Amino acid sequence: MSTAAEREDRVLDRIGEFRKRRPRLLDTVVTLAHGAGGKSSAALVDGVFLEAFRNPELEQLGDAAVLPLPSGERLAFSTDSYVVAPMRFPGGSIGNLAVHGTVNDLAVSGARPQWLSAAFVIEEGLEIGLLQQIVADMRESALNAGVQIVTGDTKVVGKGAADGMYISTAGVGVIPEGRALSATKVRPGDRILVSGTIGEHGMAVMLARGELAIEADIDSDTAPVNGMVEALLAAAPSTRWMRDATRGGIGTVCNELAQNADVAVILDENRLPILPQVLGACDMLGIDPIYVANEGKFIAVVAPDEADAALAALRAHPQGTAAELIGEVMADPQGIVALRTSFGGSRIVDMLVGDPLPRIC
Amino acid sequence: MSTAAEREDRVLDRIGEFRKRRPRLLDTVVTLAHGAGGKSSAALVDGVFLEAFRNPELEQLGDAAVLPLPSGERLAFSTDSYVVAPMRFPGGSIGNLAVHGTVNDLAVSGARPQWLSAAFVIEEGLEIGLLQQIVADMRESALNAGVQIVTGDTKVVGKGAADGMYISTAGVGVIPEGRALSATKVRPGDRILVSGTIGEHGMAVMLARGELAIEADIDSDTAPVNGMVEALLAAAPSTRWMRDATRGGIGTVCNELAQNADVAVILDENRLPILPQVLGACDMLGIDPIYVANEGKFIAVVAPDEADAALAALRAHPQGTAAELIGEVMADPQGIVALRTSFGGSRIVDMLVGDPLPRIC
Repeated sequence: MSTAAEREDRVLDRIGEFRKRRPRLLDTVVTLAHGAGGKSSAALVDGVFLEAFRNPELEQLGDAAVLPLPSGERLAFSTDSYVVAPMRFPGGSIGNLAVHGTVNDLAVSGARPQWLSAAFVIEEGLEIGLLQQIVADMRESALNAGVQIVTGDTKVVGKGAADGMYISTAGVGVIPEGRALSATKVRPGDRILVSGTIGEHGMAVMLARGELAIEADIDSDTAPVNGMVEALLAAAPSTRWMRDATRGGIGTVCNELAQNADVAVILDENRLPILPQVLGACDMLGIDPIYVANEGKFIAVVAPDEADAALAALRAHPQGTAAELIGEVMADPQGIVALRTSFGGSRIVDMLVGDPLPRIC
Repeated sequence: MSTAAEREDRVLDRIGEFRKRRPRLLDTVVTLAHGAGGKSSAALVDGVFLEAFRNPELEQLGDAAVLPLPSGERLAFSTDSYVVAPMRFPGGSIGNLAVHGTVNDLAVSGARPQWLSAAFVIEEGLEIGLLQQIVADMRESALNAGVQIVTGDTKVVGKGAADGMYISTAGVGVIPEGRALSATKVRPGDRILVSGTIGEHGMAVMLARGELAIEADIDSDTAPVNGMVEALLAAAPSTRWMRDATRGGIGTVCNELAQNADVAVILDENRLPILPQVLGACDMLGIDPIYVANEGKFIAVVAPDEADAALAALRAHPQGTAAELIGEVMADPQGIVALRTSFGGSRIVDMLVGDPLPRIC
């Protein structure tokens, strides 16, 4: 027999075991899971990249690094490689992703994205007509996002040494004075917003591969979020933290938030905005939409007294009509994400293990 | 019968046909030649990327774009993907190249390199031990160059969808006030400097592939040139223009100079610093060292009255002991590079056609 206090201690111990402890790198070869944005990715980043490059900027592991200039001005700097297969899918292409992904990383860091670089690794034999279409997509996305592609590089590798084309973009944005978003500003009681419906991008790419026996009318949500971010910050200037919910979906983003801010994140399943066709496809495939990649949505943590204004500002934006308050920040249990289910229960949303949807971005 | 003036007109017409006229894109699929830095690369860049993204920064086609900040400060921004095979070779690895290449692009633009991003596309199955070695090379190169790797990304693709690993880096540097290097400043009479021996990197990688029946003791010259650039600019403040001589070698760089500056570039074959083992290997393979990639050398155009000071400054630098004055700028024939050969003749050094050495960087 044990007392209630002893039982509580044991529960807290158990939670303590997986809270805040980033997984260790035990593998000897790289697997697809290392690229999925979940536990293995975190282990690889910690065990290989952070270990070697250690510096205060990189250790933030944010979507973008902050560059302090001699003038006192602050820039945000971010990069991503894009390896999505297929290169074109309903709603967009690798070209749209390559621009939006980097623009969005800068935007959720509080910066105004301005300049992009683009580096292409092309497999010999790629049709120039297809390349031109994808580059036209980049052009259109850059115009929509208000950024310029100012420098680039092209490499060609032999047949079989790439899968069509990979694009790496880096971006630079200017952080307006006084703006400072950080997980350290997150407090119990803060509210959690999502800027729109979740899960479309991952499911659109998955279905575009044609390997599944199901068909559904799902377009990728690929879009620049910098307009929505500016609208939100104007309406809710105390906004604590934002992140775009790409690889690993909102489940992964909320886990990073819980761990980095030493808080619990409690989400309401009933409040998650999900298109019925996405929910249906996820159901059939046994995939939890909470882990499915988005390419035009972000999570924001806002002050309790600015939550309504923040939500109204997002909903007033053409891209944010489906924005929703989906949860709140609590003090305990630290490092944990829990989902209050439709049935009145709750379950822990752990970090993703393995990669259910490889090469989604 | 034609007069001397008519003959001269015809010769000038013929030269006019290939001077300044960038080649047109006629291909329908991407070939290795499009990645070689020569005529086909220029056609692809013009016909696909410039055409779509057109903006004043990109149209410079420099090694880096100049970003004008609200404060008046100017930054340089550059990117490259690295796809070298094999990933390790005598004198370095893809990790060293990924740091030095981007640092050098910033440095020859007149900037002081400060921050790098690094994005990895890794093939499933890569040994983590090898990844760690390459990342350690990046760390060492970053330390040597005085830059920090502040942000990054990792993607994993399935077996057969990449060749080990590709790395894309982007870099940001600060351009000191008053510094403005440009091909438009180049004048007839200016002198042309190379910062050291040429051809080592390309030949080292070529031999490391083990497909050739020859062996030679050649190490890649991969190194950061920002130290040498600062030494040169301190000694020769009127320096007009610089470029690192990577893909396509000094032959390609001088062609770009001749075309962008509307001048003739006359090189002295006798003055080209080339290690005997590089010359020997090039001879055996029928490769002109003038087109072979370097990864730690640059070409500088200096004012005639600062040429001696510039050369002395480079030679006083530990990396620049083999620096040499290799030629001069003339008014005519515009857009042409000519090599005065050892035999007293001269030949035109055209832009490279095809790719004699694919995946060298």
